[in-house]
Parts: sequence; structure tokens; C-alpha cells
Amino acid sequence: MSDKWGKADDALIQELRAIVGGERLSTSAAVREQHGTDLSYHEPQPPDVVVFAASTEEVSAIVKACAARRVPVIPFGTGTSLEGHVGALHGGVSVDVMQMNQILAVNAEDMDVTVQPGVTRKQLNEYLRDTGLFFPVDPGADASLGGMVATRASGTNAVRYGTMRELVLSLTVVLPDGRIVRTARRARKSAAGYDLTRLFVGSEGTLGVITEVTLRLFGIPESIMSAVVSFPDLEGAVSSVILTIQSGIPIARIELLDEVQMDAINRYSGLDYPVQPTLFLEFHGTQAGVREQVEMVEAICGDLGGSHFQWAEKLEDRNKLWQARHDAAYACMALRPGTKAIATDVCVPISRLAECILETKKDIQDSGLLAPIVGHVGDGNFHLVFLVDPENPDEMARATAVNDRMVMRALAMDGTCTGEHGVGVGKMKFLTAEHGDALSVMRAVKAAIDPDNIMNPGKIVSA
Amino acid sequence: MSDKWGKADDALIQELRAIVGGERLSTSAAVREQHGTDLSYHEPQPPDVVVFAASTEEVSAIVKACAARRVPVIPFGTGTSLEGHVGALHGGVSVDVMQMNQILAVNAEDMDVTVQPGVTRKQLNEYLRDTGLFFPVDPGADASLGGMVATRASGTNAVRYGTMRELVLSLTVVLPDGRIVRTARRARKSAAGYDLTRLFVGSEGTLGVITEVTLRLFGIPESIMSAVVSFPDLEGAVSSVILTIQSGIPIARIELLDEVQMDAINRYSGLDYPVQPTLFLEFHGTQAGVREQVEMVEAICGDLGGSHFQWAEKLEDRNKLWQARHDAAYACMALRPGTKAIATDVCVPISRLAECILETKKDIQDSGLLAPIVGHVGDGNFHLVFLVDPENPDEMARATAVNDRMVMRALAMDGTCTGEHGVGVGKMKFLTAEHGDALSVMRAVKAAIDPDNIMNPGKIVSA
Repeated sequence: MSDKWGKADDALIQELRAIVGGERLSTSAAVREQHGTDLSYHEPQPPDVVVFAASTEEVSAIVKACAARRVPVIPFGTGTSLEGHVGALHGGVSVDVMQMNQILAVNAEDMDVTVQPGVTRKQLNEYLRDTGLFFPVDPGADASLGGMVATRASGTNAVRYGTMRELVLSLTVVLPDGRIVRTARRARKSAAGYDLTRLFVGSEGTLGVITEVTLRLFGIPESIMSAVVSFPDLEGAVSSVILTIQSGIPIARIELLDEVQMDAINRYSGLDYPVQPTLFLEFHGTQAGVREQVEMVEAICGDLGGSHFQWAEKLEDRNKLWQARHDAAYACMALRPGTKAIATDVCVPISRLAECILETKKDIQDSGLLAPIVGHVGDGNFHLVFLVDPENPDEMARATAVNDRMVMRALAMDGTCTGEHGVGVGKMKFLTAEHGDALSVMRAVKAAIDPDNIMNPGKIVSA
Repeated sequence: MSDKWGKADDALIQELRAIVGGERLSTSAAVREQHGTDLSYHEPQPPDVVVFAASTEEVSAIVKACAARRVPVIPFGTGTSLEGHVGALHGGVSVDVMQMNQILAVNAEDMDVTVQPGVTRKQLNEYLRDTGLFFPVDPGADASLGGMVATRASGTNAVRYGTMRELVLSLTVVLPDGRIVRTARRARKSAAGYDLTRLFVGSEGTLGVITEVTLRLFGIPESIMSAVVSFPDLEGAVSSVILTIQSGIPIARIELLDEVQMDAINRYSGLDYPVQPTLFLEFHGTQAGVREQVEMVEAICGDLGGSHFQWAEKLEDRNKLWQARHDAAYACMALRPGTKAIATDVCVPISRLAECILETKKDIQDSGLLAPIVGHVGDGNFHLVFLVDPENPDEMARATAVNDRMVMRALAMDGTCTGEHGVGVGKMKFLTAEHGDALSVMRAVKAAIDPDNIMNPGKIVSA
């Protein structure tokens, strides 16, 4: 059906060159390949041309030029998405926003910041350090904030601070017809009409190009304490998480690594953690508040079989402790060198989490595959990391089967097929099972805002 | 243009009676009048018929019957909206959901609850008391939770716990064609497509009828402390709020009452608070945590001129202290008996709050009107309460002029025309100034989901 889209022909390229100049446009194979590739196992799908936009007005002009010819537009940030979000399935123009990397305004009194979409999360936090403020959302990659908006990213701090859904105050968006709109004012709350901000958060480039982002910030805590604790079984670990949250303890991070992942970390980093389900914890607050949280959580975990507590308070000690968690992906890959790591992503109500993980682990065992588990368990969100040889069709098929069963299991538990990675092309096949008739509402919204289906076609709900 | 809608004629009424039975349908003038009236100054606009629905399936059948004839459908809860949300501007059927008042499931481990839309916030919290959980959103009225979803309600606890925007996990909605959809799963977070939940939160009955609501809950705090503190000037009070929030103090409530409001409260309740800008505060946490918060906020307020602190810890003392705040509306009306109280509602970035309130107070003074101010200042949200004689056109015109200037002032400060009351018919005239071209996106969404414009026509963006 790709004949419904126009071609990025010489005339369009000439027009784009007139907008951005010759140096910020590329048709080289290497640049195109890079812009059709993300961190997932999905086949790269290079666009016909890549433009490096420098302003909202340029993006608007680019989109208008493409819209006039019905040529697909695919926004591009760091290329660290995990479900094939950036592939140019029907050709078209990749709009790279990484040169739009200015921090436009820090409003310290209002605890918010406005940035261009190419600012990365680490860049933002380095910039903010002297203000005493920080932005907490931390997906694994040092992703662009525009991309994090587009995929509704979260990470390890979401249990306390929320995800991109909660922390975006306003967006500037270039619509599929090139018009520039702002989705909301900078006020903390509003009841003035439909929530366009939340409509664009998680829209994965299918409704427009995000060109400015206003985010809520938080004060850097006076005191931070990190901890690691091991459990003889998964139920004890998950029950500790549930009780911690029910007790109203404002824990900042609570991450689960299973025994396979802990073994990988021990091997990779030369550590000697017990090879057991393990929680990595972090507490933020005043000194006294953190001390109190630590005591409460220590008691909860102890009652449920937790042992081998390790605590770290100084920055370097905390960094060392968390390094093991941050290295989880590398440690996985080192378990089976030369293989590809495929990260899956489901999220269930926390009461079903232990059951969901245990049934999934049995599936992994039966499949003969190697797949450590890490999870943002305070939110009920976890990932398998399949270590597979992508050239081995049998292995890939078994991984796909385990993943499909895990997703259907999560859905049966009133969970979702993706907690934070997004739909891209990889999760499209599960949306009917997850949303039923509500999918037709999503389709209607897509058709209303992008009637010619030029924005990142082939993703989420569009053919 | 109302000839584009069908009439609620005898044939439709007969069909509706077949769905709900004779006892849950009324065409009496009194019932119709009540269902066309809210708490605002807007002219009542009675529907042609009122049906009292008992289930999602009944709502679906009712909407299908109306859709077949293009007859407007107006969802109705407690009728406590403040901008004319429930008026049947083009006739039609009021669907009263107050008999759908069952609490369907409390998931204590997941800290969520699923309710029918006619459950009120107080009913829910009474039901939850023994579970140790509560739902924090508290608009002034004991509103229905369906209505609170529809208007994106908030209230005094929003600064800590968030608004309906943050706290709705999932909705069941009857679409304008009668189909029943669920907007999301019960998982805490999801990246699986467009955020339909947030699209329906704040949609004011214009996109469908909400028939089930799943909400996040919180643990009842171990310790609660309330306080009142007076300031010689507004700047001191607002600066105390800013500094409290910047310091990361997780204050649960921080409410501002101006000197006019405090005078009204003193007169109404026989109290002797200083007639000065005053903050009402509440702290939630562990005993030690609350003590620490209290010390920090006392120091902040003291540095900025706060005095006459009063503290209350026991439930009855806290209730007594907050009673003055809860009675604010009655105290206002008693200032000028026989008049109507018209509540306005803007929200600005907190850095602009003092300036916005002070300029507005000057306007009130110049107008010769009486209009106390109360505000959820932690969010930058405040209300004037005009005490006017609705039969006096000159007074009404002056009140409208002050309100219009206040809204435009808030917009100029990057604020919004409504922080929590919603658009209804009263705020429609400001939406172009607030949203610009983004309004066309809202219109496109409305047209896509409700192409015949039968859902609560004439509200938000629909003609």
C-alpha cells in the first residue's frame, strides 16, 4: 500500500535543502541507515533523506514541504527506542532534532524548565546541578527529552516522581500540516479543554513533531541513601515492595533483579552478591526522613526473608552500588558473548507481579533460553532480556513465543503489553487484545489529526 | 442551529422507557429543571427528559437510542458544576448516573478502587476507612466521582497527591455511538498507544458517558498536623508557599485566604483571626516526619513575616481549624445576604501568583464589588467569589469585567482560564486566547469521536 505515499524525490530534496541548507541534509547510505535503526532487534528501515532541523520554524517548513507531497516524516532523537519506532517503513524524511539542544528557560521558583527536544536527560541534569533542581525520569539510555516524551518514558525513579505522563507541563508541536501549536500553559494544572499534552505524550511521532518541552523539576534531596537486599524467593521480594508502598514510604527507587541477573552481574563485575532475587533501593529526603524510611524498609524486608543488606550514603559509594544495576544490560550480554540482547517490557498490577514473573520464569526454563529479569517493581513493570542469536531462527521463534505468552499473561492480569518502551512496530500485534474497541478511538484520533497519515506511518495504530 | 439535532419525541421516550422502565424516567418540570441547573450563575437549561441509568449496558442502550435520532445526551451527576456544564442547550436527554453508586472493587495491595460514576467522594472515603486507604481529591462539593473525572477536578490536596488527571487509572466509557470501551488496564503505567484515559478526563461529557472509574488510592497517614498562620502582606504568604515547595517539603495542603475572606470567616463563625492574608496548612506523614515538616515550615513562614501560628493535631481540633476554611463559601454569602456567590477560577505559575492576586485585588477595589479570595496556592490556583445581585445588570457587568480582566491577566502570565472548574459554557470565550491553533486540534478530536455532536453539545469546543 506504500503507493499512497509520495516519494522523497529531487524536487523535495531541493526544497528541503533550501530550508536547512546543504550541510544539514544527507542522503548518504550511512546516515540514512543510522536513522532507520534503533536499539531493538527490528530490521533497520532507512529513510530516503535525513534533515537536521535547527528550529521549530524549520521543522514546520520541512513538514509543510513533505505534507504537500504526502511524504512520510519520521522524527529522530538519539535512536535509542526499543520497538522499531524510527524505521521509515514507507520511506520519507527523517527529521533529526538533536541539533535543537538548547535549554531555553529554567524557572526555579516554578520548578520547571523548557527545553528543545534534542536535549538529553543527562545534559539537562548537568545543566541544572547548580540550581539545586533535577529531572528524575531516567530510561536506560541517555535519551533525548523529545524522544522520552514521544515514548512516554519512565525508568527507576517513576515509583516516586512519576513518568513523562505526569511530568510534562506543556509541549510545542508541529502538526502534520505544518502548523505550530502549544498544548498547554505553564500553570501546574488546568481544566481548560481536552488534555492535548497527554495526547502527544506517548504518540511516538505519529501525531506531530515535538519541538519544545516544558517539564516539572524537583529539588535535589538533602539526603540520599541506597541499599541492596537479597531474598531467598521472589515472593518475599515482591511482598516487601507491596508493603513498602502500602506503608506510604516515599521510596525513590525499588528495582528487582532476579538470580540469573545477579549471577551475570557477579561474573561481569567480579562481585559476590548472593545469587538470589535482589532489590536495589534508594531513599530521598531529609536526613531524619531518610533514616526513618531506611528503618521501616529494613524491618519490612527482614520480616519477609531479606538478608545481606548493604547500605551506601556517600555519593561514590552509592554510585558504586548502583553501578551493578546500571551494568545489568552489559552483564547480560557478557553471559553469552556475540548474542543480541532483546529487551521485553510488560507491566501488571503489583498484586499479580510475583505470579506473572514466576510463570514467565517457568516459560523461560521450558524454552531453554537465557533471559535474566530486571524490573521497576514499584510500578509492576519488568523486563526480560533475551540473549539470542538473531541468525538462529529457532531461537528467535522460541524467544518470540515466550514474549507473546508473557504479554498475553500480563493482559489477562489486567496489565499492559508495554510499561515504558512503547508500541513502535513491535507491540502493534497486541493492541487489539489490550484495547479492544478503544483501538478504534485511537484510530479516529490519528485520522483526525493526521488525515494523510504522513507522521511516522506504520506505528501504533496506523497501517 | 438547533435544527441539526433531533427532538426527544414520544417515540424516543417510549424507547427509553423500554430500557429503564417507567420509574426511572421523568419528564416532570421539576426534575427537568433540576437537571438543567448547576451551582453557577448560568441560566438553567432543562433537558426534555431525564433517565436514571442503572448500568453501563443501560447507558449504552440509551445513547444508541439517542444517537439514532441525533438527540443530545447530557451526563448528570450531583449537578455541582460551576460553569453551566449540565445545561441542555439544544434539548435532549439528561442521563443521571447517581443510581450507579456501587463500589465495585477495592484492590488493597494495588492501592486502587473501581467505582460506578455516581459514587461521591465522601461515600468512597467512608467506605474505605477500615482499609486504611483514602482518595484525596476534594473539590468543594461532595461531587460524584464520574463528574470529578469529567471536569478534571482537584481541590485542597492536589499539591501533594495530584488532581484527577494524575489519579485516574482507567475508565469505562460509553461512546457517542453506544459502544462500550475501556480506556486502559489497571497497571500503574503503560506506553501502549494514545492516552485515552487522559483524553476523557476533563472532557465534560462531550466525548462519551463515563460509567466506571478506576482510581489510585493512598494510605491514610500515620500522623496529620494542621496549622494556620497570618501574614502582614500577600507577598510574604506566597513567598512562604514557594519556599516550602522548593524545599521539597511534601506539604499536603496549603490554602490562602485573603483578609476579606478572613474577615468574613470571623464574622460568620465568631472567630478572631487577624484580618490578614492567611495560610491554612496540613502535613501528612510519620510522626517524626510531620514534626520535621512543621519545624521547617514554621521557620520559613516566620522568616517571611508569618505570625499567630495555631497548630492542631487531634482529629477534632483539626476539624475545628479547617471548619473555618470549609465554611468560606457560606461566610462569603453571609457578608451580603440575599446575593449570589459567583466563583471564578484561574491558575498561574506560582512565581506570578502574588502579582496576579494583587493586580486582581486592585481591580476588585476599583469596581466597588465585594469579592473575597481563596486559593489552592501550592498549585498557583485561586478563586474570587463575587457577591453580587444577579438581578442588578450593572453589578453583573462589573463582575464580568473584573473576571475577564483576571483571566486575560492569568493568560498573559502563562496561566490558564480555569484551574479546576472546567470550561462548560462559561469559559468557552477564553479558549481561543488560551489555546490558539491548538483549539483546532481539540475540535478535530471532538468531531472524530462524536461526529454528530450529540454528546453535551455547546460545551468546550462544540457549537
